[in-house]
Order: sequence, then structure tokens, then C-alpha cells
Amino acid sequence: MKEKRGIYSPLYTDLYELTMAQGYFLEGKWSRPANFDYFFRKMPFKGGYVVFAGLKDLLDVIYNYRFETEELVYLEKIGFKKPFLDYLKDFKFKGTIYAPQEGEIIFSNEPVLRMQGNLLETQILETVALNILNFQSLIATKASRMRHAAGDRMLIDFGLRRAQGEGGVMASRAAIIGGANSTSNVYSAFNNNLDVSGTMAHSWIESFDSELEAFRKFADLYPDNSVLLVDTYDTVYSGIPNAIQVAREMRENGQQLVGVRLDSGDLAYMSKKSRKMLDEAGFPEVKIVVSNQLDEYLIQSLLNQGAPIDGFGVGTNLIIGRDDAALDGVYKLSEFDGQPRLKISDNPEKILLPGQKKIYRYYDGEGAFSFDGLLLDEETDAEVYYFQNHPMGPMQRVRKEELLMPVMQNGELKVETLSPQDISAYRQNRLELLRDEYKRFENPHIYRVGISKNLYDLRGSMVEKYRKNLEKNESAINR
Amino acid sequence: MKEKRGIYSPLYTDLYELTMAQGYFLEGKWSRPANFDYFFRKMPFKGGYVVFAGLKDLLDVIYNYRFETEELVYLEKIGFKKPFLDYLKDFKFKGTIYAPQEGEIIFSNEPVLRMQGNLLETQILETVALNILNFQSLIATKASRMRHAAGDRMLIDFGLRRAQGEGGVMASRAAIIGGANSTSNVYSAFNNNLDVSGTMAHSWIESFDSELEAFRKFADLYPDNSVLLVDTYDTVYSGIPNAIQVAREMRENGQQLVGVRLDSGDLAYMSKKSRKMLDEAGFPEVKIVVSNQLDEYLIQSLLNQGAPIDGFGVGTNLIIGRDDAALDGVYKLSEFDGQPRLKISDNPEKILLPGQKKIYRYYDGEGAFSFDGLLLDEETDAEVYYFQNHPMGPMQRVRKEELLMPVMQNGELKVETLSPQDISAYRQNRLELLRDEYKRFENPHIYRVGISKNLYDLRGSMVEKYRKNLEKNESAINR
Repeated sequence: MKEKRGIYSPLYTDLYELTMAQGYFLEGKWSRPANFDYFFRKMPFKGGYVVFAGLKDLLDVIYNYRFETEELVYLEKIGFKKPFLDYLKDFKFKGTIYAPQEGEIIFSNEPVLRMQGNLLETQILETVALNILNFQSLIATKASRMRHAAGDRMLIDFGLRRAQGEGGVMASRAAIIGGANSTSNVYSAFNNNLDVSGTMAHSWIESFDSELEAFRKFADLYPDNSVLLVDTYDTVYSGIPNAIQVAREMRENGQQLVGVRLDSGDLAYMSKKSRKMLDEAGFPEVKIVVSNQLDEYLIQSLLNQGAPIDGFGVGTNLIIGRDDAALDGVYKLSEFDGQPRLKISDNPEKILLPGQKKIYRYYDGEGAFSFDGLLLDEETDAEVYYFQNHPMGPMQRVRKEELLMPVMQNGELKVETLSPQDISAYRQNRLELLRDEYKRFENPHIYRVGISKNLYDLRGSMVEKYRKNLEKNESAINR
Repeated sequence: MKEKRGIYSPLYTDLYELTMAQGYFLEGKWSRPANFDYFFRKMPFKGGYVVFAGLKDLLDVIYNYRFETEELVYLEKIGFKKPFLDYLKDFKFKGTIYAPQEGEIIFSNEPVLRMQGNLLETQILETVALNILNFQSLIATKASRMRHAAGDRMLIDFGLRRAQGEGGVMASRAAIIGGANSTSNVYSAFNNNLDVSGTMAHSWIESFDSELEAFRKFADLYPDNSVLLVDTYDTVYSGIPNAIQVAREMRENGQQLVGVRLDSGDLAYMSKKSRKMLDEAGFPEVKIVVSNQLDEYLIQSLLNQGAPIDGFGVGTNLIIGRDDAALDGVYKLSEFDGQPRLKISDNPEKILLPGQKKIYRYYDGEGAFSFDGLLLDEETDAEVYYFQNHPMGPMQRVRKEELLMPVMQNGELKVETLSPQDISAYRQNRLELLRDEYKRFENPHIYRVGISKNLYDLRGSMVEKYRKNLEKNESAINR
């Protein structure tokens, strides 16, 4: 039985995390308190929001984070030192993690995951946290866009064959969180308790002497799952007529053909033509499912054209999150040893937010999300008015809520794990509180995220201090 | 110790493979011989070739392909039937697989992997074969383009944090095959025996009271790995001057600063400026490594601008294979029960090639790859002159070789596994036989792939037969 630890191995990291961790350890500063923020700078798909996903897997990894003997032997082989390896032998994460509920709607520049603990334990989790949260949030967001386009029609993940290797396993989970009904991926369904779907490929048809025989045998074996793939030879002159023939035979046996699947050709034309043929033959209940390089734009376009489609099978574009295929999330030190920390950049929008922060979400008078505010932890309320160069005027603030909760405290899990289906329901409820302007695909309205005056001032004073130091260097160098 | 089977689980598949497999089983046709071809239709990255990768992992999966009890219990739970599950209990792949050496240069429409065996065993491997070969070939191809641009400079994979979940593990291996020197991914290095690299992030710098102190301590701990990240506060007025200071101190101790890393700003300008400052201070030996959203085009552009760069750290664009992020490989039945099989399509370029085929690679008079020919297995040579609408005139054919070898025969492995480094060397040797016109990034020359006259005629006669059947249906329907 071949097995691999994958994300559960502490070696699932960039080497530099371990190099720095050993450095902190040998320097004797490893145990001092630190805070790292996870956030992303750019919304993917030119969209207006992101669905936060991956938290359950990340917490599971952190809770089970242990170095195995063979992993320590490997680290010794590549040069790590005995005292550090002895420390790692008994390593367990004892820090505290703040995050929103998985499935929450989030926006760029928000510290949506905060990792508090000693410098060493918070540093070495950087890569795995980024890997899991970036990818699952990307795919959940993509799926939610497809769900938005598909309305309440069936949406099925068919992507495993084009997935990025084993990334397909997490991706199927994230697809369900984002709004897919089921997946073709049996392994992910087994591990993540998802609904699983699948009927036949062209090879099934080709392995019989005739398409009609292939359909008949399939319907015989799987009457409840009888979705027939009708485009192997010719949809209009072979596939649909044969499907109608089988539908008749099933009806004679007191059964019902479930549907047909179109996998090529012009899906708008073909679905209308197929619907007409099925209806005229007396089978209005037979569903039409389509697949073939679908994305949210094509789904929207097909439905705008009045295509009578009941279900969409989506593959590549969902499972790899095309076109972006990556979320640019980062994980940055914002406080260490009681002092706020900052990285400076020539690009003003890349200057970080120092200190320990929380997120308030403000609602408008009609109960919809109005804007989010980033505040220092000690603030209870604040005038939220600046973010970068985006001033906020006085806002109607009827109600606010805090988005980040302690999901792990001193190494102990603090939240119940929801099923992917329940997380999807939460996402759906939250998205209903986000106005449509933020959800549209073309030039969505930009949701406002502001920072408190205190946070603004803290950052400003720190930047000022660094600038002064640099000026001294500059004059020394140019002297 | 948390472990997962991942690709080693037979559940790592689309449900329909198992649905069809049970159908074949219950129909009693499962044991009849079949041949499936793996091929892709479109070269990724608008490029002129693909590096074939993933074979070792795929063969390992197939050789170890076993259903575990809990997996069979799950299949029963979702509706599979007892006799089929009993069969799966003792399932072992006993077929034969043909493929080229991993690292081979391949082209669109070539059946680069052929799976021969009974219908059931060849069908159920479809999804895992596509998943592994599509992704690893995509990433190896991307890496080889970066290697092409980088010449003999260092090329390091930094991508795990932006990888598509656990896809990052296979991707690091494929990156090495494609030409990267090392990876930051410790887990993949451990499992695939790769060289691993990594020094420090900005958090290392920020956790000290000054950048100089941070550099000094790192150089003290890791003199042989002393590549200092110089852009935390300001590259020119802080990072480089502090690095020079540390280089001086190291020299006094008989040590040598290895390099600096630039991670932001205009890398052409910054690398020239940094080189000048280091040289003027007497440190021409200190290397310059750059990172930040690099791809093959940026690497080429930086070097065209004369940027004095010694190494490139590449992340997102390599590890997800941007912009395509997927290779469109498919797996199609081409023969069953002794008869060639065919799927028809309205798009002529999507009509498949029936029968059992081999690939000959023809060389020109100067020893370079000239063109490839697809022949029926029984042909020993042939006039290779057609592929789709691409006629081939008489060619100078000095020498030919057969690309596909039996890599597994009756379930037994027939090839020694090469290391990723040896596969990379093979790729490099083969790429040297491919003329530069096929390797350029903009509008590469299209490498010719032809089919033999016999194969052309076979396909033509089969299409003709289907057309006649369709015409009968058509007149019956339109009557």
C-alpha cells in the first residue's frame, strides 16, 4: 500500500523557512512572539470578490504537524544541525490562529488569516498556509462565478484529467464550496465526502458495434443514471435519434431516460435542436447536459441565447482556475517581540500594514455589505477612512460584525468543521448580502476596504522613520 | 502519522471510468483486447514542442495499482455491485505500455503513450494517465523554455506557495526534468531526490533591529549559503551597502559572500546598479540572483538588456505553467477486439487515428530531427506523406528511429528508472537535435508529423463507412 504524507509532511515547505527557523533557533530568538498576516493583493479573474477556502485542510495540517524520523534524517543529510533537529523532534504548534468562517466573502489586502505564536512556529507554516489557502480560495472563487452564471442548474466538476496533478483533489473540494453540485473525482469524493457523478465516455460507445446497442446496454445497466453521450458519430442524425429510441424502450419497461450529454459542436444550436427533437418525440422530461471547455462566460452566453440546458459539466477552466490559475496571496510578518514590523517598497501599494489587526464588516441600511475596515486589535471602533489613496467619506453604518475568530488557540482547535456542502451554503448566504454590482464579470464595482486612523498613523510614522534612516545612508553614500 | 494514497489510490479517477468498467464486466466483454492512445492536440505556450514527462510516476502508479478494502467498501456504498467488486479485489494491470524515454521531445497528435490490454484494465487507467502526463509534460515544457532563455545561468524553482495544492510536488520534479537546477520544495526534493535551495525571506530581516545585523547573523550561520535578500528597505541605499559591509567582514574572516538577491523593482536597472556597486567595492565574485514574477520572456528580455544576472528564482509562472496551465491531452480508444475504432467529429482535425500505431522519427542529412511519421504497427517503412491537410513532399531521410518502446509488458516493468537529473540531460541532448526555429518563442516553425498512406487510407475508409450510415439515418429522419 503506497502512501505519501503530502501536505501533512513538515517537509512540504520552501527550504528557506527551515533555514530561517534554524537561524532563529541558534540565535536564541525563536521563542519570542510574532504575528504573521495572510492576505492577497489582487482579486483573481478580474472579479470583485474572493471565496475564502482551504481553512479546514490547513488547520488539519497544523494540528497534525509532526516531524517523522526519516524526515529528520533527511534534514540532517542536507545540513541541518543536531540541536535544531532535536528541537524539531518534539515540535508541536502551540500558537493561535484567527480566520473567518470558511466560505466567507473576502477582499484584497485584508489580513484574512493571522498566525500568532513564537517566531519559529509561525515562520515554518508560511509555505503550507500559502499553498493551501491560495489554491482552494482560487478554485472556490472560480466555481462561485460559474454558479452565479448557471443559476440553479446542475454544475458538475469534470476536471481531474486536466488538473495540476494531485492539486485536483483539493480543487474538487473547493469546487463544491464554491457552488458545484458534484464531482467526477472519486478519490476527492471519498476523502471529502462529496457527491460524485459520471456516466460514459466515447470509448463506451466505440466498444459496441452500434451506438444504439451501446445506449441500450447502458440504460439497461444504469437506468437511474442513464445520461447518454450523443456526439460520438453525429448528434442530430445518430445520437439523439438513438437516445429517443432507448427512451421509448425504457418507457415501455416503466423506466425513464434521465438525459443526454452534448460534448462538441455549437452547444447553443445543438441544445435547442436536441430539445426540439426530444420534445417532439414526447420526451420533455429528458434532461440536456453539456460539456466542452465551459467557463462562466460561456455558461452565461449559452443561457443568454436561451439554450435549454439543464446541467453543465465543467473541466479544465474550473479545476485549474483559468485564466489566473494562481492567487497571489502572501504571508508577512507584521509584529515581532511586541513591536510592529514593516517592509518598505518603492511601490506605495506594496507597503504593508504593521501591527495586530482585526476586520470589521459594516452593513448598510438595507442589510447588505457596505464596506470593511481594518483596525488595530485594541480599537473597539474607529473612523475608518483611508486605505492607500482611497478616502472614505462618512458612511451610514447600521451594524458591524467582526470577521476574524480564533479558530485555533494555543494549538487547540476551536471550531467545528463544517462539511463542504455546509460551507457552500454559508458562501451562498453571504454572497446574497453582496450587491450584484460586485458580482458581475465585467468591471465589477470595487468593494471598499478601509483602515482606521490609528493604523494609518502607525504605518505613516514607521515609514517616516525608515525614510529618515535611508536619507542618512543616501547622503553618506553620495558624499 | 497522517498519510494519503493520492495518485496511488484507484479511486483517483473519474467516476465514469468505473461505471464503464463495471458495464464492460457485467456485459462480459471486459477481457477482450483494446488499445488506447494518449496524445495532445495543441502545443502549450504557443510553442513548437513538448517535453514528455510523468512516465516514471505513471508506471509506478500502474505497477502498484491495488484496491484497498476501504476503497471497495466505498464503491459498494455508492452503488457498485458485488461481482464487480470481487473482481476488483484481485485486480492487477497485466497489459503492455509503449512510450518514449521520459524527457523525449514530442509533438501534437502523436500517440506518445499506447496502452494495450483488456478493455477494462486499459479503460480504468485513463484519468490517472491523463492527470500525470498532461501536468508533468506541461511543466517540463515550461521549464525547458526558461532554461532556453537562461542559457547556463542558475534556474531555481521557488513555486510551492503558488502551486496548485499538492500539484506542486510533481511540478518540482517536472521542473528539474525541464532544466531547473534545483527547487525550494523540500518535500519534492526528499521524495524525488532533487537538489534543494533556499536562504531567507523578508521576515528574517524584519525580525532584527537592523538589516545589517540580520545580514551579519545570516552570514555567520550560513557562510556557504550566504545569499542576502537586499530589498527589504531600499536596495541601493540600504541593502547593497549593508551586503558590501558583510562581504568585507567575511573576507576578513577568510570567507566569501556568495550573493545578493533582488526581489522587486526594475531588475535590469537594479542588477546593473548592484553589480557596479559590488564591483567598485572589490567584490566581483558576489553573484546576483533575481526573482519576482519571472517567466521565459522576462528572462530573455533581462539578458537582452545586458543585465548582469547569475541566477533566476522562478515561482508562479513556472509551477503552474502559465499562461496555459493545462495540456489538453486525451486518451482515446483506437482498437478493440481486433478492429480499429474511430470517433467522428464535425471538426476534421478532431477525427482520430484508428488502429495500433508507432512513431518513426526521421533525421535530416545534418543529423537534426527532420519530421515524424505515424505508421501502422505492421509497417516497416512507408511513404509518410499526409497528416490532415499537411502534405509532405519527398524528404531526405538519412536515418530513422522508433520512438515508442515497451516500458511495461504484461504488467512487468521493462525499463530502468532514470533520475530526474539524467532525464534532464537526455532532454537537453534531444533538444540539441531540434533546430532553433522550433524552439523560438514567437511563431515557432511547425514541426511536421505525417501519417503513412496505409493509415491515411484506413481512416478514410472508416470515415466513409460512418458517413454512409449517417446518410441512411438522415434520409430516414428527413423523410
